[in-house]
Amino acid sequence: MPLAGKATKMTGTKIALVGIGKIAVDQHVPALNASDAWDLSATVSRKGSVEGVPAFTDFHQMLAERPDIGVISLCLPPVPRFEYAQAALLAGRHVMLEKPPGATLAEVITLQKLAAERGLTLYTTWHSRMAHAVAPARDWLADKVIRKAHITWREDVRKWHPGQDWVFEPGGMGVFDPGINALSIMTHILPEAVHLQSATLEFPANRQTAIAAQLQFSGNVSADFDWRQTGPQTWDIEIETDGGHLALRMGGNVLELNGQPTAGENTIMGEYPALYARMAELLEMGQSEVDLAPMIHVSDALTLGRRKETEAFFF
Amino acid sequence: MPLAGKATKMTGTKIALVGIGKIAVDQHVPALNASDAWDLSATVSRKGSVEGVPAFTDFHQMLAERPDIGVISLCLPPVPRFEYAQAALLAGRHVMLEKPPGATLAEVITLQKLAAERGLTLYTTWHSRMAHAVAPARDWLADKVIRKAHITWREDVRKWHPGQDWVFEPGGMGVFDPGINALSIMTHILPEAVHLQSATLEFPANRQTAIAAQLQFSGNVSADFDWRQTGPQTWDIEIETDGGHLALRMGGNVLELNGQPTAGENTIMGEYPALYARMAELLEMGQSEVDLAPMIHVSDALTLGRRKETEAFFF
Repeated sequence: MPLAGKATKMTGTKIALVGIGKIAVDQHVPALNASDAWDLSATVSRKGSVEGVPAFTDFHQMLAERPDIGVISLCLPPVPRFEYAQAALLAGRHVMLEKPPGATLAEVITLQKLAAERGLTLYTTWHSRMAHAVAPARDWLADKVIRKAHITWREDVRKWHPGQDWVFEPGGMGVFDPGINALSIMTHILPEAVHLQSATLEFPANRQTAIAAQLQFSGNVSADFDWRQTGPQTWDIEIETDGGHLALRMGGNVLELNGQPTAGENTIMGEYPALYARMAELLEMGQSEVDLAPMIHVSDALTLGRRKETEAFFF
Repeated sequence: MPLAGKATKMTGTKIALVGIGKIAVDQHVPALNASDAWDLSATVSRKGSVEGVPAFTDFHQMLAERPDIGVISLCLPPVPRFEYAQAALLAGRHVMLEKPPGATLAEVITLQKLAAERGLTLYTTWHSRMAHAVAPARDWLADKVIRKAHITWREDVRKWHPGQDWVFEPGGMGVFDPGINALSIMTHILPEAVHLQSATLEFPANRQTAIAAQLQFSGNVSADFDWRQTGPQTWDIEIETDGGHLALRMGGNVLELNGQPTAGENTIMGEYPALYARMAELLEMGQSEVDLAPMIHVSDALTLGRRKETEAFFF
């Protein structure tokens, strides 16, 4: 990186990134490097590192040795995340959590209380809410009556999580790992909250989490999640209202109103840059943002859903 | 009932009881009849009724015809409960919910919001918290450090739910139907919140809900739920602290400190009379009491738990 760039970065807020896996490399690191507001000052990971950034393997050592780093972004898988988040808050650091914010609801509520007690910022991020067309969709829906909504979220787990058996382990979320992105958009754009009424969950005979799910919510809202879709991938939300038809396609990136694509706002930033901009804003205001709604719908589906065994799944 | 009794009841707050099944007949009706604060003014049930009390089969008809009844107590199974609670709140009535307060977390949150918007009382009851020894246990634990806690909740589903197949249907809770009583006590008496770390759930091959569960929480707290226990039934919570050993036995009704039974307070009222006394207090104060913590732990167990298939269960 040229010296000019380095000098600019010196003014950013120091942040440490924990869990240098695929999502960190693909999204978090580029977002932080592209922003003047942030200075990626350390990484913590068993194996991964980022060139030019001090790398730690032990989180407690990093916390002890780098009191100058006030913000921690956690992008490791949900199950171990709580211990790191709790340690960071107890060490007086602000915390940003990848989605889902934890393996259980109770642990996130514990973190929320801890952050509040210590006057620290906790931000449970939902990256799909930052997709280009989500805010315009929300604005358009705000004064409409929803007659019907349907989510189709079908992708190929072999393409997006090649060989990652942990996604099918307890706490690995299964098809709700992508599905919760759809639910994070749904809970953000619908003008009235909905609740699950019934669900069917398809569990492969050899797995602990669902590979497909059909959800029926109140208010004529439904969702179809499937992790077995080869060929073109589908991340669509279609909504019938008293004022016309809205479709959000490409995971919230394309908006169609009454069948016509709307002009994209090309100046809007990407999902992860927008998350980090929001974190900077929360720090500035001294606030937290903790929204459990998408995770509650997943828990509700696993509590209320009817289980069907389906054929064994192998990567 | 003698005339004197009837005259006294005239001064009580009018309440309608919805869902006249086993729990209503065994607990709610006797509690209401024994209290001067309440006047059981109507029942709503497909089949059940209470002698001397006007009986409706249609809830909306009761709401329309009896505007004088300001409080509704819902003791039907969790799955249909939301529609009734929502209708009652929309009709301006205060609402009391049997445990668990709903089939999903999202629906109870919706009710909570609705009650708050309309200035109505919503009370999510947890009857086991009213067992005789729970308040003394909570007081004794308040200044202690918990070293270890273990819940053993083992009963015979054939004895308590004879032939009730719905308890094994989606939303029927399975072994968490009794287990949530233990969790309602646990979340009430422990001085610090805990969160689930892992769980094993045993699903009979022919059923949709678990018949047994082993839960491991943070803070060295664990639980063993089983619905297959014949012979003596066990509802115990044992807690090791820095100030000695506490045991709550008989579902919260017997307290032992360091192995010695404590003298029971015989003047304390029963669980359901205490719930209705609390509802009267909430109405008086114009407040709601909505605690989702026990239900969140169940949702977390179903989200994070490892499933094991066990032998088919038949009543």
